[in-house]
Amino acid sequence: KQKQQIDIQQLAGEVREAKRTSLSKAITLIESSNPEHKIMAQQLLQELLPYTGNSVRIGITGVPGAGKSTFIEAFGTMLCNMGKRVAVLAIDPSSSISGGSVLGDKTRMENLSRHENAFVRPSPSAGTLGGVHKKTRETMLLCEAAGYDVILIETVGVGQSETYVRGMVDFFLLLVLTGAGDELQGMKKGIMELADGIVVHKADGDNVEKAKNTVREYRKILHFLQPSTPGWESQALAVSSYEKTGLKEVWEMILSFEKQMKESGYWYTRRREQTSDWFYSMIHDHLIDSFFGKKENKELVKQLEEEILQGKLTVTQGIHQLFPDFG
Amino acid sequence: KQKQQIDIQQLAGEVREAKRTSLSKAITLIESSNPEHKIMAQQLLQELLPYTGNSVRIGITGVPGAGKSTFIEAFGTMLCNMGKRVAVLAIDPSSSISGGSVLGDKTRMENLSRHENAFVRPSPSAGTLGGVHKKTRETMLLCEAAGYDVILIETVGVGQSETYVRGMVDFFLLLVLTGAGDELQGMKKGIMELADGIVVHKADGDNVEKAKNTVREYRKILHFLQPSTPGWESQALAVSSYEKTGLKEVWEMILSFEKQMKESGYWYTRRREQTSDWFYSMIHDHLIDSFFGKKENKELVKQLEEEILQGKLTVTQGIHQLFPDFG
Repeated sequence: KQKQQIDIQQLAGEVREAKRTSLSKAITLIESSNPEHKIMAQQLLQELLPYTGNSVRIGITGVPGAGKSTFIEAFGTMLCNMGKRVAVLAIDPSSSISGGSVLGDKTRMENLSRHENAFVRPSPSAGTLGGVHKKTRETMLLCEAAGYDVILIETVGVGQSETYVRGMVDFFLLLVLTGAGDELQGMKKGIMELADGIVVHKADGDNVEKAKNTVREYRKILHFLQPSTPGWESQALAVSSYEKTGLKEVWEMILSFEKQMKESGYWYTRRREQTSDWFYSMIHDHLIDSFFGKKENKELVKQLEEEILQGKLTVTQGIHQLFPDFG
Repeated sequence: KQKQQIDIQQLAGEVREAKRTSLSKAITLIESSNPEHKIMAQQLLQELLPYTGNSVRIGITGVPGAGKSTFIEAFGTMLCNMGKRVAVLAIDPSSSISGGSVLGDKTRMENLSRHENAFVRPSPSAGTLGGVHKKTRETMLLCEAAGYDVILIETVGVGQSETYVRGMVDFFLLLVLTGAGDELQGMKKGIMELADGIVVHKADGDNVEKAKNTVREYRKILHFLQPSTPGWESQALAVSSYEKTGLKEVWEMILSFEKQMKESGYWYTRRREQTSDWFYSMIHDHLIDSFFGKKENKELVKQLEEEILQGKLTVTQGIHQLFPDFG
């Protein structure tokens, strides 16, 4: 197998010129588990850091069946036609753009994928949640360096990745259907409090009246919840991706959010906090993984846990057996 | 200063005989930061473990002004008069029983404190949140060994300790006032999804109608949220501690919760999970505290964080500088 030499300076230049194949190559480098590639990937990213940060980062979530891929296709295409450059990423292997649809339709985001202003990239398929979330963040930075104005990050809304996505985007959008109460049963606890905006989707045909009622209900509930972004009152809107209604309103909502948050300065504060939190959470994860990565630690913890659950040992005594210096 | 010899076997016996002064002495031992006391405290707790677990553990939270101490006084006194033995603990130094009231009234829980079936203990005043939460858990176990049937753990509902309290109780009660929407602004994000029951307090005099409306509103909202306890639909009730209305209904709700959860087995599953989670979270805290406890680590992290925020370094490169073996 021929070893390919990668010129980082050149690749960085090509990414900045928004060459699609070079961006794809750069993302593959970020996703590689090869130790040499990893080092090069970080050199590339370091090179490109000064050119990152200039997009609107939007997280999109919703239960399976909420129509995420249809929404992203319609919303993304509208933005592309407005002259925006749009990158679509996914964080979970089961997300619609990664091929997790039960319908298995191959036409998903076909129009958007072919649009010259769009770049659609499925999620890294392997790795731990922490690892995938790191790769998605870094891919987002590469897309920004390539000049994409809007980054859409899709997540499935039933697992743990919503919190990660909330931690890497400016605006978080939740897609729901009419008949809110029942459908939310399948959603993650606290998901509504992560959302800056709620889209009541499939507001078309016979469903229009129902959707309007659902929007009213969500507005009431949002009033009772803590806002996801301090100083922003989370909004609910009815959207039909099929009839192309409400899409413009979603974008106007996001623009108004951006304007308000940039004026208050919270836009920049949150970005800094997100980067710091990312760094600290990687430190925490590494410390915990290193400890439990040692077989003898893992086994001792398991054994002590058993004794604690059997009432033979107090929790504090268990900690003392693990860490004799524990104060 | 005379050194007092403590006979652990004897003290354990006295706690089990529910001698108030011995229970107080045992709790003081648990709260002591003296290394010898700490070891003795754990021996005492280990001795008493077989006699713990037989109470209903109830967490009570609410914003300042919700009337927590009035409620606990009225609710606790009612239970004591029914022949129950009730222990009241607090987890935050600013809780009402610890003297954090802005009114500074000295009559707080005076009746309850004097009741022969009650034991009221303020929170440990010093220490980290993790440390306080450990002491409160261990104090709860001592109270159970002393035969208390109901443990009420108060928390102020604006900080971080609600999650800790939810992690150590069977039933979590949230106290609110009428005019829910506005008042919830001051509450912690996600607090409603921690609650198994919501008490709309001060439902007396002119406030009765308003309270009924508020109860209806909360019921609607609870319907949209994920339940705090799987299989239990969180309930909302109007209560007046002043007119002593609704208190019996709160107790009946808790009894019905206990019955259902014991039948489904989740009562015991959750208790086991809570103990395991406590053990694991202490391991995590220790690993993180040990790392950041070293001055050179703390300083290097700060410096790397600065470079990352200035865009000179990627987050992954920062992690590599801290942990050269990072994969």
